[in-house]
Amino acid sequence: MAQKSESIELLLSGGIVVTMDAQRRTFEPGALAIDQGRIVAVGPAKDLGQRFQALETLDCSGMAVIPGLINGHTHAPMSLLRGLRDDLQLDVWLFGYILPVETRFVDEDFCRLGTLLSCAEMIRGGTTTFADMYYYEDAIASVVDQVGLRAVCAETIMRLPTPDAQNCDESLAYTRSFIERWRDHPRVIPALGPHAPYTVTTEILSEVQQIAQQYQVPILIHLAETAHEVEESLEGLGLSPTSWLHAQEFFEGAAVTAAHCVHVDEGDIAILQRKGVGIVSNPTSNLKLASGIPPYPALIEAGLRVGLGTDGCASNNDLNMFEEMRLAAFLAKAESGDPTCLPAQKALAMATIEGAQALHLEARIGSLEAGKRADVVVVDLRQPHHVPRYRIAEDNVYSQLVYTCGAADVYHVMVEGRLLLREQNFTSLDVAQISAEAQRMADRIGSFVMEREVNLLDKILAIGGIEQQETFEVQVKARVPDFVTLEQLLVLPQISHRRRSERIQYDTYFFFQDERQGRIRYREDNVLDERGHTHPSYNLTLILPAYREEYPNAAILSRSRFTATADRSLRFYREYFQPDQVQEVEKHRERVHISYEGQHFALNMDTLKVPQPGHFLEIKSRTWSRSDAENKVRLIGELLALFNIAPDDLVKGEYVEF
Amino acid sequence: MAQKSESIELLLSGGIVVTMDAQRRTFEPGALAIDQGRIVAVGPAKDLGQRFQALETLDCSGMAVIPGLINGHTHAPMSLLRGLRDDLQLDVWLFGYILPVETRFVDEDFCRLGTLLSCAEMIRGGTTTFADMYYYEDAIASVVDQVGLRAVCAETIMRLPTPDAQNCDESLAYTRSFIERWRDHPRVIPALGPHAPYTVTTEILSEVQQIAQQYQVPILIHLAETAHEVEESLEGLGLSPTSWLHAQEFFEGAAVTAAHCVHVDEGDIAILQRKGVGIVSNPTSNLKLASGIPPYPALIEAGLRVGLGTDGCASNNDLNMFEEMRLAAFLAKAESGDPTCLPAQKALAMATIEGAQALHLEARIGSLEAGKRADVVVVDLRQPHHVPRYRIAEDNVYSQLVYTCGAADVYHVMVEGRLLLREQNFTSLDVAQISAEAQRMADRIGSFVMEREVNLLDKILAIGGIEQQETFEVQVKARVPDFVTLEQLLVLPQISHRRRSERIQYDTYFFFQDERQGRIRYREDNVLDERGHTHPSYNLTLILPAYREEYPNAAILSRSRFTATADRSLRFYREYFQPDQVQEVEKHRERVHISYEGQHFALNMDTLKVPQPGHFLEIKSRTWSRSDAENKVRLIGELLALFNIAPDDLVKGEYVEF
Repeated sequence: MAQKSESIELLLSGGIVVTMDAQRRTFEPGALAIDQGRIVAVGPAKDLGQRFQALETLDCSGMAVIPGLINGHTHAPMSLLRGLRDDLQLDVWLFGYILPVETRFVDEDFCRLGTLLSCAEMIRGGTTTFADMYYYEDAIASVVDQVGLRAVCAETIMRLPTPDAQNCDESLAYTRSFIERWRDHPRVIPALGPHAPYTVTTEILSEVQQIAQQYQVPILIHLAETAHEVEESLEGLGLSPTSWLHAQEFFEGAAVTAAHCVHVDEGDIAILQRKGVGIVSNPTSNLKLASGIPPYPALIEAGLRVGLGTDGCASNNDLNMFEEMRLAAFLAKAESGDPTCLPAQKALAMATIEGAQALHLEARIGSLEAGKRADVVVVDLRQPHHVPRYRIAEDNVYSQLVYTCGAADVYHVMVEGRLLLREQNFTSLDVAQISAEAQRMADRIGSFVMEREVNLLDKILAIGGIEQQETFEVQVKARVPDFVTLEQLLVLPQISHRRRSERIQYDTYFFFQDERQGRIRYREDNVLDERGHTHPSYNLTLILPAYREEYPNAAILSRSRFTATADRSLRFYREYFQPDQVQEVEKHRERVHISYEGQHFALNMDTLKVPQPGHFLEIKSRTWSRSDAENKVRLIGELLALFNIAPDDLVKGEYVEF
Repeated sequence: MAQKSESIELLLSGGIVVTMDAQRRTFEPGALAIDQGRIVAVGPAKDLGQRFQALETLDCSGMAVIPGLINGHTHAPMSLLRGLRDDLQLDVWLFGYILPVETRFVDEDFCRLGTLLSCAEMIRGGTTTFADMYYYEDAIASVVDQVGLRAVCAETIMRLPTPDAQNCDESLAYTRSFIERWRDHPRVIPALGPHAPYTVTTEILSEVQQIAQQYQVPILIHLAETAHEVEESLEGLGLSPTSWLHAQEFFEGAAVTAAHCVHVDEGDIAILQRKGVGIVSNPTSNLKLASGIPPYPALIEAGLRVGLGTDGCASNNDLNMFEEMRLAAFLAKAESGDPTCLPAQKALAMATIEGAQALHLEARIGSLEAGKRADVVVVDLRQPHHVPRYRIAEDNVYSQLVYTCGAADVYHVMVEGRLLLREQNFTSLDVAQISAEAQRMADRIGSFVMEREVNLLDKILAIGGIEQQETFEVQVKARVPDFVTLEQLLVLPQISHRRRSERIQYDTYFFFQDERQGRIRYREDNVLDERGHTHPSYNLTLILPAYREEYPNAAILSRSRFTATADRSLRFYREYFQPDQVQEVEKHRERVHISYEGQHFALNMDTLKVPQPGHFLEIKSRTWSRSDAENKVRLIGELLALFNIAPDDLVKGEYVEF
């Protein structure tokens, strides 16, 4: 009778085994045989009990054994920003709190600690794989390696400076070496994370594509999260964000996963379907930030690979995949008016096998099938909110897992055959220590924000409608004789020009004793039309202290500027900001936009009246990229030579500093 | 130094006390002094520690002390039907499963057991007060009394028979005695539950109002839950359900709470506001049944008293108020496109103080203030998903309670000063025993449903578009000479008539060996227009076995009939239902609707061809009420006398039985 011929490490036995395989088989009482990190067999408890001799057997009676949940989109370190501020307008929340705090605090240690905290919460809630998109992904990958989870770690790349890169060139270099370091890890999948269509350039996309193909790694990107993003894209590029990416051939030959896709139309969906792009929906985040409700019925109808994610903790505020499953099912029903839409089984699929498909990992994970990695979650179904259990229809168990289960019901969690949560106790993490460290970090962040609460950015943000402008400003001024006109300069054959304008500008600068706060400019801009009539507009700009680099022919200023329409009086702003010093500048400005060597510059011919009379030519350009800025400095040198302006005529500083 | 002059029973001390008082004060570290079921004082821990000498002190460090949550709308016993069937069309779910199971199983024991189970779940999840609307409310109130919770218990009243009343007269009588028994209870508030505008009559509403005023008890009602309800009301009555209730003066002088209000317009909202009607929104249920998303921004804007509820477990599937808070906040943001809409503090208010206002109980409960009942919940904020805690802004704690807390985080629960959950252990309930009994009940229900899966109702329901018709049929047939016409009868001055029609009806009856299944009639109804052209229509009716009462002049049949348009062929239905016997009936029918003594009857002059020739007068009427049916039997006697029809000419039975 020695039938137990096969020795294995672990047998999960009893309860209901929900395989999520293609036939959606369940076994009750069922069992799962695990050895060397893989699933060896799944089936009725009796059969497996007879077949296998296990070193350890876990009794799962009264529980459900399901595939580990897959959190398809998050920013793990952001758990440290959980609940920092909520219920704010998106711009106030993002520019007023999240970005300044990230700029100040995000470093390797921050990412390591935040990821540890998130891993604790995810393990506790039954998540075995997550897809991350943040900075210092190397630190994040190290934590994943250490705690035993599985993750796709995508380094964020954008045209703006990030906490771990001055510019996109640095990001791309970081990403290359990060991928080389982690590409052979059994549980960490290094990836590229071009942030979103509106924060990258075509050059970044093409470089990303090239790296993805070279190393055969996946790409994660944010896509069509807000209606605003789609409107701006249609307006600026004439294409939806999805169509624009498609036009860049971004989806060709790469395993792409797009997060959000709240605002996609039929055409977008057809592209995503045809190109096999994985979609990860984040219902909680989309509701909480008022981004909208994704078109679930259409996404499902099209047969897309749709997974679920929590997004970062700052906009959720937790990493609870049970809530995402429930919410996706609910929203699809409300949206379609059809209670049969997105049934519980489908919701569980989106968090398991279809989530794996969305991340292009279905060969390894997502279902309980022989040969797959042993990523398994055991859920306790004995709490009052689970009672009673019906076994009338096939779908009873899915309904229970989706409509009544919570993260707190998770009992065991295993990744690659290793138990990370055993009877609700962590095996690879010291939660008390992580929590204490996280609280210390939050206290530091809290102090920073509290001090900052009285500062200018916050005050200007409270007004609303703020836009951040380009960071690198390249500029030079030259004192020129009164008789020099723009016309004389524009006759040069190397220059083409367009959009000429004439205006009188009255600027009022507010200065503050604490110079780190920056200064505020209130500008009345009187544009003159062809008949000499003026059309005033008013705006308010917060100019943060600049890092300035002087070159022989120009200066590069690296500084943050936040601009908003000023729809109140100068008196109001003076009282509101209470500056320590006020300075006025008045000038007549003729402006023309020129193109030289394929680059754009503004030429301003300024007749300054206040603070002192003078006639100046200003050459100016803005960009997000340092290397681009340096190139422009060189071109300005050439322009100055063409204009016959001698270095001695160059003027340092700004009018307000005269 | 003996300053501790005041002796109290219990002091909750440490952590953050979230009062939800008018100023939304919080104290950290705070304390709450409790004596004889009341809150004696609330304030800083240090002050209260110095002032009071407590028999017991509970250390609440690392926790939040909040007012007990108020579940403003549920059907407690329905926890026994949790997960019975989900993700089905509303009619299939309701008529196919919930109603048949309720009809078969709901009795006092069912209600007692189901309420025990729900109380366990509610206590575990921090609910201290719930508003119930079901049957056998006396049994439900007894459980509330026993386990120590607080509840508004509203006996359901409608024109249809219910599990505890043959008709609305019985319901009203039951409700009167129920109210008299419970009106002085400290925690049970007996109430009236007229089911919904579309299931009551004006007579029921007026009776309900009278009882409410006589005993000064509140009224709960379902209102504007689905778009269909509103459409039907507008079509049939020319008024929205809210306007119709208002026209009936239903809101005058009574404390009314309306559940759902998903489909209310500006006019409805104005009425509800002016009349001080409490609203209870059930976001999960509204989504899961695809009823829609309530207009939260408009409800809030109008300053309505809006609370939150879970609805019954069959459509949720749990009793988790944390989920309802979160969902209300999320949906309001998505609906308005404004992430500042319905912030966390407002969501918590809806589940506490504003929920109390919605139930007209704000003088007793809903906030932590001296003098109020000690209904208190302590929530543990030390789990990973709560880490870290920010204390930057006033609203940080609300965001944590609403966006990250779950029912599993509830640590202590107290009602009227009595701890019902202490360190997550129940003090007044044996959950293991309740769960075992609930599972036994579910197993019985499961067997019933599984057997029934092959039965007729289910099969007819699977076709869809079913409507249930009136229950009481009053009818009599008389054999009359061939020359008698309707014209001759209608000359009588006591009778007025309208809507004359002429038709040829071909009926095919399906009979089954198991007579309890009822029989099915497939009818081809050929209505003749003025030019003698026929216009056929087809319908399918399931006629369940009747309870028949014979009177000298007529019979009363109490039976359920479900009718649907038959859009397939007779062949299809014959194959689909596989009847054991088929019987045909063919007749020419002249029909006129008459009014006599203010009551409506149909007179059918039938020329029967199959199964046997004959000329018959049929007098028929249908109603939802037994007393109305008896009145009609009497009037039929008078009509027969007026028509000179002798008792000997009366014919028992139906044509198909000839």
